[in-house]
Amino acid sequence: MDPVRLIRIKEDIHADNNAVAEALRRRLSDTKTFLLNIMSAPGSGKTSTILRTIEALRGQLRIGVIEADIESAVDAERLVAQGIAAVQLNTGGFCHLDASMVSRGLEALDLNNLDAVIIENVGNLVCPAEFDTGAIRNAMILSVPEGDDKPLKYPLMFSVCNVLLVNKIDYLTLSDFDLAAMRERVLRLNPAIEIFAVSARTGQGFDAWTEWLHREVRAFTGEKRA
Amino acid sequence: MDPVRLIRIKEDIHADNNAVAEALRRRLSDTKTFLLNIMSAPGSGKTSTILRTIEALRGQLRIGVIEADIESAVDAERLVAQGIAAVQLNTGGFCHLDASMVSRGLEALDLNNLDAVIIENVGNLVCPAEFDTGAIRNAMILSVPEGDDKPLKYPLMFSVCNVLLVNKIDYLTLSDFDLAAMRERVLRLNPAIEIFAVSARTGQGFDAWTEWLHREVRAFTGEKRA
Repeated sequence: MDPVRLIRIKEDIHADNNAVAEALRRRLSDTKTFLLNIMSAPGSGKTSTILRTIEALRGQLRIGVIEADIESAVDAERLVAQGIAAVQLNTGGFCHLDASMVSRGLEALDLNNLDAVIIENVGNLVCPAEFDTGAIRNAMILSVPEGDDKPLKYPLMFSVCNVLLVNKIDYLTLSDFDLAAMRERVLRLNPAIEIFAVSARTGQGFDAWTEWLHREVRAFTGEKRA
Repeated sequence: MDPVRLIRIKEDIHADNNAVAEALRRRLSDTKTFLLNIMSAPGSGKTSTILRTIEALRGQLRIGVIEADIESAVDAERLVAQGIAAVQLNTGGFCHLDASMVSRGLEALDLNNLDAVIIENVGNLVCPAEFDTGAIRNAMILSVPEGDDKPLKYPLMFSVCNVLLVNKIDYLTLSDFDLAAMRERVLRLNPAIEIFAVSARTGQGFDAWTEWLHREVRAFTGEKRA
């Protein structure tokens, strides 16, 4: 009997995606454009965080945005209304972005006039963690109302990120969220992760976070001029 | 040239799953056991809602629970500590439950002594909406801090559910969540859906919700006796 032919679909998909992601990173290096991938559960405040981040860095960094959603363009519309260069990707049912989708999003932006692009990934703590988007840095947002047990349930997401924004800290008064316990759980998974407690509504904590981002962008792009 | 052989993996997966789900529903009908599938984003309060629902119906309905998570057993441990018959499924990376996984969970429960089983699906608004778990009714939880725009972004999830619990309404004071606008968006997708505004923390709204659930279970099981 012939041996069974085994087609490892998932492994092939990941190998293909990794190759596209590496090519994308070379292109970003050539054009001196930083790419940040932001992931979170639905409703953690990705769009509000992006808006306030861009506002805080206005005059220092030129930032464009790739918005991803299963359907609708409400997030990109919110950004464009603020004069931000933004493109909306509809994944049409897909639960995550991959590097090819991000490449198509980047083609719609004028990279010569941007220091950085932020990807707002699909709201989902599972699938986006598995796919390299080609980003230079990965960020995740965990909002206080979601609870401090999330690192226990979605460990891969916390493991693949360089930075964690703990958002909606203005909700701490109403919540039994234990910031110290959450921090300990995250650092056990990922000792190198940077953690910033913020509120995208009040602006609390944004100085430290945007300073970190500014430093990361400049380390990658140098002093880029259009 | 021979025509290309097309293997529709996704369609095949769904056809297989639907057959398992139908077989599961026949078994539930035979054993007179109601099955409710609860879906939501991470941190919307699924476990707290299940705990309070079982407590509210104690003495009226015997309810067991199937907990699903990528990793960890923290949710099942919380239920078992309250004397509830619960089993934990670890999906090992899978972003949703399918009918086969639920079947295995049901095998670990004593259905002769249960009127109903509640499934706590993986915290995810995308993938679980695509897979029939074999449940008799589908419920979703949307928590106030997630925002009133979620029906625009995750329309399939709102379309496949029979009932929507709008949880954490005690956060309404801190939020610009527009209950009327959200309701209109949901009813446009799914005019038949039942909507209850609740707080799993304070118990607000639980009378109406548990009455609805009690009625649905009795309509399916009749007066089941062990």
